Amino acid sequence: MLKRNVLAAVIAITTAWGTVGAMSHPVMLEDQGSFMAGGTVVTAPGTYDGKDPKKLDGETLHGDAAYVFWQKPVAAHKLGMVFLHGYGQSGKTWESTPDGRDGFQNIFLEKGYTTYVVDQPRRGKASQSTVPAELTAVPQDQLWFNTFRIGEYPRIYDNAAVPRDAESQAQFFHQMVPDTGALDNKVVAAAMDAVMTKSGDSVLVTHSAGGGPGWMTAIKNPHVKAVISLEPGTFPFPEGEVPQPEVTSSPFPAVGMAVPKDDFMALTKIPIVVYFGDNIPSGTTPVDNWGQDNWRVRKNLADAWAKVVNRYGGDVTIVSLPDIGIKGSTHFMMADLNNRDVADAMERWMTTKGLTQK
Amino acid sequence: MLKRNVLAAVIAITTAWGTVGAMSHPVMLEDQGSFMAGGTVVTAPGTYDGKDPKKLDGETLHGDAAYVFWQKPVAAHKLGMVFLHGYGQSGKTWESTPDGRDGFQNIFLEKGYTTYVVDQPRRGKASQSTVPAELTAVPQDQLWFNTFRIGEYPRIYDNAAVPRDAESQAQFFHQMVPDTGALDNKVVAAAMDAVMTKSGDSVLVTHSAGGGPGWMTAIKNPHVKAVISLEPGTFPFPEGEVPQPEVTSSPFPAVGMAVPKDDFMALTKIPIVVYFGDNIPSGTTPVDNWGQDNWRVRKNLADAWAKVVNRYGGDVTIVSLPDIGIKGSTHFMMADLNNRDVADAMERWMTTKGLTQK
Repeated sequence: MLKRNVLAAVIAITTAWGTVGAMSHPVMLEDQGSFMAGGTVVTAPGTYDGKDPKKLDGETLHGDAAYVFWQKPVAAHKLGMVFLHGYGQSGKTWESTPDGRDGFQNIFLEKGYTTYVVDQPRRGKASQSTVPAELTAVPQDQLWFNTFRIGEYPRIYDNAAVPRDAESQAQFFHQMVPDTGALDNKVVAAAMDAVMTKSGDSVLVTHSAGGGPGWMTAIKNPHVKAVISLEPGTFPFPEGEVPQPEVTSSPFPAVGMAVPKDDFMALTKIPIVVYFGDNIPSGTTPVDNWGQDNWRVRKNLADAWAKVVNRYGGDVTIVSLPDIGIKGSTHFMMADLNNRDVADAMERWMTTKGLTQK
Repeated sequence: MLKRNVLAAVIAITTAWGTVGAMSHPVMLEDQGSFMAGGTVVTAPGTYDGKDPKKLDGETLHGDAAYVFWQKPVAAHKLGMVFLHGYGQSGKTWESTPDGRDGFQNIFLEKGYTTYVVDQPRRGKASQSTVPAELTAVPQDQLWFNTFRIGEYPRIYDNAAVPRDAESQAQFFHQMVPDTGALDNKVVAAAMDAVMTKSGDSVLVTHSAGGGPGWMTAIKNPHVKAVISLEPGTFPFPEGEVPQPEVTSSPFPAVGMAVPKDDFMALTKIPIVVYFGDNIPSGTTPVDNWGQDNWRVRKNLADAWAKVVNRYGGDVTIVSLPDIGIKGSTHFMMADLNNRDVADAMERWMTTKGLTQK
């Protein structure tokens, strides 16, 4: 079998190298799989009988777990990478881009990392919730188009590093998913704690609304050896040190989380980098473009937060991608046309922090 | 890069071969990715403005698409394999088993097939529905435990080929997912049609409630070159030839679908095999064990259906796994302890039908 595999590899490398949209080279996969992590069990009142299938007394429901798909390449780096998506998304965020290029799942697998792509509880393949929910199916693609800084709908920003064809845009909107139970960061963080215990020592990569529960996970689980956060929605401050929320034209104010000082201090023990993309205004005055203003206040909150963490001995770096030569990044920088540049920047940072050992 | 990959492969094969739960050998992956297929777009009444983010007039919603995760090994067989799950499930059905062994996703990847693992519309990573839904979170694990022929809760059948530890059982229940919009086989079949157009020529593998829309997909899309159906819930008959539903103690009667004769005839043009597992009673008299009786009536319907298809020139084989020496299969034969035997039986059938060419 070995001989056939190696021969096949040679053939494939010769023929497939450079195929449009394909992985840049074949990857020898040692193993892959999926699992559920965490979650709770609820039991209906009454006594289970079983004779009448329509009588559900005493039956159980398993819900609120996270779903994880993982892949391990041969000769993997010591630390894995755990990817937690943001609002309205599942692990699809990190998979193929809407125009079919490699997302971070493939890019970091190619770079030799064991990847763990999460669907948070009450989302995607982890959508069994222990609490009921009403799904409204309200059309709001344009709300997200603007909030994600693709442009001001229907105009795409001139510098936005996104594909401009209709099919790619449809793929992007189609990958959005609803909450199947109340969005509860504690439920997400509890499941993420179980995810990290299963993954073992890893770099936790969070996006957007995944940022909040991501910080809570890093506080709780020592397997989180570093955090890379892409435009997180919020940041945890020691109780009593949460800044006043700034006035914003966005419908989503940037509100810091208050955590006990001891919990906060855990974040001073690991290296953290936060990336922001392009088209984010600076200053303290709201701008009319509410999609952009949403990120002005978050970037300001990030700057304030980094100062606090670093004052307590932490190691937080806030990076504005255009400042390091990566232009046009939207809120979905992991899927933009220059997403490989973003991945490379992440890996360079990881190397400087000693996180890329084999 | 080639040299390093091959060296790594040798090291990995030497060290990882035989690891418990791991793939039986590393796989050289040429490419992988995910995409959404099919779906519809709905638009809210009114005119889109964009100045007020809280005003959603004229906004759109993309929903009802299928989600597909695909992987292509080097030197793949010509035909791909498209996997469609059943009720209460997502593509997780085909991934790692509840006790962490390889599911069909890995087993057929190892065998050299390009795999396409689907989440049907309104389920899992494809859970954005265009219609509202109320999710009840009603506990009913035991209903499914019995219906899936694991046993009569809490007793596991003595011969059931399933792991018996609590964690594996919890993993199984945790992977269940709700419908995020009305279950509509036409919506599923429409999205599956788009899936097949993207996958190209493939063997369609369906399970349980995925069987119904699977037949509709095979009727509609010529890229379906064969169907392997694992305990499908129903079967399509020509209008006027649908048998009367049998009396059953199951809450889920087995009701044949009526389709136009011309549509039906499409199913006579491709090879089809249907597998049933163990612990299914025979005969025409309902048994008290309603979980088993659910499959007695379906197997009878399958036998009746095969006769009709074959009478019209088709090539349908109904296989009872215990009859070919595979014992103890539950309704989730793709995840049972002897799932590799089931996969091998499937591949042998595929070989006899000329479907395994490279």
